[in-house]
Amino acid sequence: MILVKIAVDAMGGDNAPKTVVEGVLRARDEFADLEFCLYGDEQQVKPLIDNMERIEIIHTSEVIDMNDEPVKAIRRKKDSSMVQAAQAVKENKADALFSCGNTGALLTAGLLIVGRVKGVSRPGLLSTLPVLNATSGDGRFNLLDSGANADGKPEQLYQYALLGKYYAQNVRGLANPRIGLLNNGTEPHKGSKLTLEAHQLIAADDSINFVGNVEARDLLTGVCDVVVADGFTGNAVLKAIEGTASATLHLLKDAIMAAGVSGKLGALMLKPVFKELKGKLDQSQYGGAVLLGAKAPVVKAHGASDAKTVYYTLKQIREIVAGQVVEKFSAYLEQQRSEQTENN
Amino acid sequence: MILVKIAVDAMGGDNAPKTVVEGVLRARDEFADLEFCLYGDEQQVKPLIDNMERIEIIHTSEVIDMNDEPVKAIRRKKDSSMVQAAQAVKENKADALFSCGNTGALLTAGLLIVGRVKGVSRPGLLSTLPVLNATSGDGRFNLLDSGANADGKPEQLYQYALLGKYYAQNVRGLANPRIGLLNNGTEPHKGSKLTLEAHQLIAADDSINFVGNVEARDLLTGVCDVVVADGFTGNAVLKAIEGTASATLHLLKDAIMAAGVSGKLGALMLKPVFKELKGKLDQSQYGGAVLLGAKAPVVKAHGASDAKTVYYTLKQIREIVAGQVVEKFSAYLEQQRSEQTENN
Repeated sequence: MILVKIAVDAMGGDNAPKTVVEGVLRARDEFADLEFCLYGDEQQVKPLIDNMERIEIIHTSEVIDMNDEPVKAIRRKKDSSMVQAAQAVKENKADALFSCGNTGALLTAGLLIVGRVKGVSRPGLLSTLPVLNATSGDGRFNLLDSGANADGKPEQLYQYALLGKYYAQNVRGLANPRIGLLNNGTEPHKGSKLTLEAHQLIAADDSINFVGNVEARDLLTGVCDVVVADGFTGNAVLKAIEGTASATLHLLKDAIMAAGVSGKLGALMLKPVFKELKGKLDQSQYGGAVLLGAKAPVVKAHGASDAKTVYYTLKQIREIVAGQVVEKFSAYLEQQRSEQTENN
Repeated sequence: MILVKIAVDAMGGDNAPKTVVEGVLRARDEFADLEFCLYGDEQQVKPLIDNMERIEIIHTSEVIDMNDEPVKAIRRKKDSSMVQAAQAVKENKADALFSCGNTGALLTAGLLIVGRVKGVSRPGLLSTLPVLNATSGDGRFNLLDSGANADGKPEQLYQYALLGKYYAQNVRGLANPRIGLLNNGTEPHKGSKLTLEAHQLIAADDSINFVGNVEARDLLTGVCDVVVADGFTGNAVLKAIEGTASATLHLLKDAIMAAGVSGKLGALMLKPVFKELKGKLDQSQYGGAVLLGAKAPVVKAHGASDAKTVYYTLKQIREIVAGQVVEKFSAYLEQQRSEQTENN
């Protein structure tokens, strides 16, 4: 049995350390191959744990909060739970880093402390979203970069296509994931300078099942399994989808409330339908956002995560580590480099 | 009474010329100050018109279709309805150009035939979207550039902020429209190179009520009246909003259908609610997409537009021309230039 060891920033998030520890305990109880190093205030963390099996607490004296400026925080708060957890991953004491804390600081810790895979200029953030009207596939899609780098380069987008492929194959279990490039039109001649160049690079790699350009309006109907974008656009699309789904449901609720007795009766009858809809739109079951391209997975769950979300995200990390996503990607880059050397 | 003369590409769109002409007739009958020049195949157009009051037909022998390559089509199909209509606007025979045809070709016609306002490097496309959970404002927001230019520059985004302001003031009647910059975070230090520079430029102009950076997730709840973006991101956000609203409603419908008798009964009782929801999400009532920064308004309605959408869009053009949006923007740029000359 391969043990997967996760370094946990126990102090990150709105309800830390309580919900973080609860999620850890649930994952520990369910998966016999998981081990945890919890970084945080021992006085707060310890009383939350009944049984220390496969759990170690490493006391830290500082916390990076949501208002901290990321780079400054990572450089100065050396004894923070986040920096210490990242340091453990860097020193191979753990296989992955998990936090519900300050996103910018976590990305910085991934970049500056955990470090990049050789040949990667900028790691990208992978998010998982639901496919709402799926006729095939596993009912979800990955979007990367969903916000790690505001200024993308063609080579980076090509690497995101590869990273997305390895993720979809080894975590989601798709044999031949369909990779799309987010663009302002499906025709190959359409796009910005960035997407036109990225298109060429991705299309030139036969190992990628490239379905070409895809438009944001078709993502939720499952036009591809992985969509590649620069971090600025990816972030905007992610937030537009979240905001629209939420605003549509709110509007529906308000309209029902205003519709009087028949509206309320109708709503009562449709209660299971609304529950199903909300469930499909709820992203927490799909885990967190994964910084891919770092030497080990660095995974972020929402600041307001409850224990269930923490649990799902730890489960996801287990699959990323066991699926050797980073190792396979790294080996492919290594193979490309040696082929280029031979050709020169 | 100021007469507003609109050059209409009668052959553009899936149901042209029928729906285009029907929309024109409805607008003509309602507004005594509207005049129309219809460019198209006279044999097809004329039989659709009962009464030629304030309508002129100019026969053209070619049509630009959806599969035509934009620049090539504009250069070669000189006697097409779209090129001839654009030519009329260039020669001041009409105040604005309307088409349901090929978007790329229309943008090219706007740029190459109608031409740019002096000092504008690239006109931007303005779209109107609904605010779903409004507590104030007029229940909509404008997004520009929603897709005219895939590669935006800071100076262009600043001009979009100005154009959006003049549009919101003079077409929507907002005294002091709130202008936001689409970004990957609300903090002023966040952003891409492009948005960081654009932020500075917009913030430096006291004539703009700049509310700072806004995120895509807050657009539908009315965080600002006009949101400025580069055309690539703006296009992606527009399509993400459309796609998510549509997919959410479909999912709801499917779930209701699968929910058996109580689901169908509930749906029946909620019928007025669903109708209201669909109405709010229906963008046709807000008119078309407007190319702003060209010497005259160039306005695009969806290829599948029905007569009602054509009518709403013609009504919108009447307001843009009467509101002198282009003239006011142009005068402001002129004033800036003369101030700079004085300072030098």
